[in-house]
Amino acid sequence: MSRSEVVADIAARRGFYWPSFEIYGGVGGFYDYGPLGVAMRRNIIAKWRKIFIEPYQDVIIEVETPVIMPEPVFRASGHLEHFTDYVITCQKCGRKYRADHLIDEELSKRGIKLSLEGLSGEQLDEIVAKYGIKCPNCGGPLGKAERFNLLFKTTIGPYSTEAGYLRPETAQGMFVAFPRLADYVGRKVPFGVAQIGRVGRNEISPRQGLIRLREFSQMEIELFFDPANPSCPYLSEVEGVEIPIVPEELVARGSQDPLWLSPSQVAAKGYANEWMAFFMALSVKFLAEMGVAPDRQKFVAKLPHERAHYAATVYDQMAFTERFGWVEVSGHAYRTDYDLSRHAHFSGQEMFLERRLKQPKEVEEVRVYPNPAAIRAKYGDKMGDVIRAIQRRQGAVASALSSGADSVDVEGFFITRDMVYIKRERRRTDVEKFIPHVIEPSFGLDRILYVVLESSVVVEGERRYLKLPPDIAPITACVLPIVKRPQYVEEGRRLARALWRAGVAAIYDDEGTIGSRYASCDEIGVPIAVTIDEQTPKDSTVTIRDRDTRRQVRLALEKVVDFAIAIRSSTPFDEASSRLGATPFKA
Amino acid sequence: MSRSEVVADIAARRGFYWPSFEIYGGVGGFYDYGPLGVAMRRNIIAKWRKIFIEPYQDVIIEVETPVIMPEPVFRASGHLEHFTDYVITCQKCGRKYRADHLIDEELSKRGIKLSLEGLSGEQLDEIVAKYGIKCPNCGGPLGKAERFNLLFKTTIGPYSTEAGYLRPETAQGMFVAFPRLADYVGRKVPFGVAQIGRVGRNEISPRQGLIRLREFSQMEIELFFDPANPSCPYLSEVEGVEIPIVPEELVARGSQDPLWLSPSQVAAKGYANEWMAFFMALSVKFLAEMGVAPDRQKFVAKLPHERAHYAATVYDQMAFTERFGWVEVSGHAYRTDYDLSRHAHFSGQEMFLERRLKQPKEVEEVRVYPNPAAIRAKYGDKMGDVIRAIQRRQGAVASALSSGADSVDVEGFFITRDMVYIKRERRRTDVEKFIPHVIEPSFGLDRILYVVLESSVVVEGERRYLKLPPDIAPITACVLPIVKRPQYVEEGRRLARALWRAGVAAIYDDEGTIGSRYASCDEIGVPIAVTIDEQTPKDSTVTIRDRDTRRQVRLALEKVVDFAIAIRSSTPFDEASSRLGATPFKA
Repeated sequence: MSRSEVVADIAARRGFYWPSFEIYGGVGGFYDYGPLGVAMRRNIIAKWRKIFIEPYQDVIIEVETPVIMPEPVFRASGHLEHFTDYVITCQKCGRKYRADHLIDEELSKRGIKLSLEGLSGEQLDEIVAKYGIKCPNCGGPLGKAERFNLLFKTTIGPYSTEAGYLRPETAQGMFVAFPRLADYVGRKVPFGVAQIGRVGRNEISPRQGLIRLREFSQMEIELFFDPANPSCPYLSEVEGVEIPIVPEELVARGSQDPLWLSPSQVAAKGYANEWMAFFMALSVKFLAEMGVAPDRQKFVAKLPHERAHYAATVYDQMAFTERFGWVEVSGHAYRTDYDLSRHAHFSGQEMFLERRLKQPKEVEEVRVYPNPAAIRAKYGDKMGDVIRAIQRRQGAVASALSSGADSVDVEGFFITRDMVYIKRERRRTDVEKFIPHVIEPSFGLDRILYVVLESSVVVEGERRYLKLPPDIAPITACVLPIVKRPQYVEEGRRLARALWRAGVAAIYDDEGTIGSRYASCDEIGVPIAVTIDEQTPKDSTVTIRDRDTRRQVRLALEKVVDFAIAIRSSTPFDEASSRLGATPFKA
Repeated sequence: MSRSEVVADIAARRGFYWPSFEIYGGVGGFYDYGPLGVAMRRNIIAKWRKIFIEPYQDVIIEVETPVIMPEPVFRASGHLEHFTDYVITCQKCGRKYRADHLIDEELSKRGIKLSLEGLSGEQLDEIVAKYGIKCPNCGGPLGKAERFNLLFKTTIGPYSTEAGYLRPETAQGMFVAFPRLADYVGRKVPFGVAQIGRVGRNEISPRQGLIRLREFSQMEIELFFDPANPSCPYLSEVEGVEIPIVPEELVARGSQDPLWLSPSQVAAKGYANEWMAFFMALSVKFLAEMGVAPDRQKFVAKLPHERAHYAATVYDQMAFTERFGWVEVSGHAYRTDYDLSRHAHFSGQEMFLERRLKQPKEVEEVRVYPNPAAIRAKYGDKMGDVIRAIQRRQGAVASALSSGADSVDVEGFFITRDMVYIKRERRRTDVEKFIPHVIEPSFGLDRILYVVLESSVVVEGERRYLKLPPDIAPITACVLPIVKRPQYVEEGRRLARALWRAGVAAIYDDEGTIGSRYASCDEIGVPIAVTIDEQTPKDSTVTIRDRDTRRQVRLALEKVVDFAIAIRSSTPFDEASSRLGATPFKA
């Protein structure tokens, strides 16, 4: 049995994941996570936070923003315009196909392979015409390739005009909240904002299990930095990590073989800036610690026509799977100031920070001074609110009124010319405004779960087990009375409860032979099995079996909880044994 | 300053939460969680899992299912039909109002208070007519009350006919996956399925900050039990908890004052079954451990006309807040077999378990046997699949074909009469089928966060702080050089990094007076402040200040991480001090 067959076999049967809504025939692109899947997801998230967030609390903060966002966000972000795939509809049976998938599948039947990424609708139509591709369902003629927007659309509130969309990335929640977040960190760069959460992409024809879902979970960081100073203070800490990278120049030449470079080499060669190199190094470490060796990883640059609309440089972190070949598990994008600038433009709010100048300079500024008398005449008691609004939005007021408008709407107040004095002033300043640039590492939790699961499979003759790292394994310990004798059962149940109360994920099982129960625990990657045997009632000891080596030690019953906690926090089996006074097992 | 004013002051300024999409003017009912809010949410979730899930791993499992679900789910669940509020539209300006809110507000201006819950559209129209209520915006005439469905609607995939909805509760994901989940636990009751996740309710006019959101997070358990045996094996473990309960009979008489009963008394008096009483007791404990004293909690029964369409008994767990009065923080519903029966009916899938009979009985059964020859004639190689489908769906095949249909569609195969033999057989059996009943405790994470935050506020003269339990507080430790001297700064940064690397949430701050920094840490409820002072360079000790008492101890620098970890896991300050050898502080 191959690795991927083992995963396919256990995924649903053992409760990792299965297709959603099965009783209604299922809907493509949606998966449920069962108890083991949920536990593993939680462990992967904890690992990600441990590697990317916790050590860098001076730089990286975490937020949670809504899944549903109103239309202006996606008009500004460009998703309404650009977040599309081409769909082709059969003119006879009405079936719809994702254009590139359809062409790919039909041509591969004829042994033809074309590169379709980034092609226009007209180009896709030409290919369909040239090869005479028909509807695979009914043989009917196909219509023209049409753009299909992948945002899930809904309506917010009772007015049908108020469109909302499910976010296709968590990123926009951070960009839109930028003013608040900048205030939180004292308006200083660099700072990063992390978010973990669900997103939706209304794929035309989802496939490949967890790899291409319509609803999935992301773990993202938007790292804001001053483009005049892209240095990362933590780069030297990851210098020992070798990054397998296929830069744009190699990809353009058709190569997919990575160079192995240190983070500072990646930056020095200009393949990525320091922050991007830093996150790449952490990403190598992240996957490696979950059992995906660096030689089964690589960062492949995207060529300009393959990149998302917001990105200037993109690397996909790929991991090798038996089932799907190389799979993208994270994307590393240099988003420049695209998002903040667009949101500043579309919202009319200012999204800048200030940098200190080396030398003060003289600048001419337009300043807006409120005229309290005129404001009070119109707004009375609300004068203070109006003045503060004007001060907050000086730029907007000045540009509107000095470009000929008679009034301008500022946070709900109508400001007319008589309410303000607009003056041009020269002054010396030692700061200047800038819009931060963004490096974004973005991880797909569901894909990572699949990759880690498949990578963990070990098949040794008849035996198979998941060699999941103990801090990723969904269950830490199995408690197994060697036979179902009342005294053993009672002792076993008591021990299981002690583990549960201590927050250790544990399974109690007393059905079947001890061999079949070991196999059942191995199959889901439980790092240790605790056996209650004939000696337990005599001297209050149990055996602990190591999943990977099947070696056993004997341990005092009262130390099992500590042993399990040590294992879960990645203490090696031998070290936990000696620390807790376990002795070699003699059967 | 009152408690709620303190919360209002710090919520956005200090980074707990703020209205989403502010740069676009905001959209009612959506909130962002800032760094402190995210940390507090995570801690509340961890506490909930610690109380409701971890100790009961033999009974309760956890799943994660999609936020988007297809239409058939909500047709079956009754949400398409029943999950509505009444909306009233102004005939002149087009503004829309939630009918009960509008009536309530307009009548309260006249000093009139009516009970509107559960009224029909006609009854609401009568009230509007009787009191001559007009549009508060323009004074225009109001239209009739119309039902407005609160599900967020979208479309799944490229076909406009495939409707999907955002789940309004996580519960349906568990009901729909019932066959898989029952298999996971060995088809035995009782078992519970927990889920934590986001849900959407398209409120007509959301209000009250975190209390009524359009998108929020739930923590739910669906506990499946045999209605013939509703006993809870863990009831005795929570017998010490006193439950403040206002049962239906008291509510009907207009009382809101709780009785204080033990879980077994609640069950014995028939106010709730054992499982519901058990979860109520855990819920009291859950809130109490987060600083909401039991005397600020109560469980209030809902009267029949106030209950959701699926529920036979409902208690709302209410917590008292200064700002909003009594707020529902969890709902405890006896959902009977409503959901499973509806899904069984609408999906055609069987959603039952089997219970062992005390005495075997004779039953007559309709059995369906495949006719392989006829099946092979039509389906050839797929014969095996067809036979398995027939076996899985015996009931559907038998009832369709014996009630006169010529064929029946089974999992995509057309089964005609010649393909099966249908036989009535009598046999002895010692099991019978039943559809499990459901007890559901359902928690609103966002409301709980507000309640816990408000409850934690302490105002003592000029001093104010959040007395958050250390396992709920978003930040565990502040690291503060007493003055900004290079040596202190270096030591402080090194310590902060050590805490961060150990996964402790900590703030490093060296700006401003030590007094203002203590106040700043107090304001967000940081349990301990670590000060680097003149003695630190001499003997490698620091002071640790207890937030609640402001008492200080002196501790070896190398033990600070352990101290912080002890505090975070709820070790009292004095106990941590003596365990780690801290000495009284002499200034």
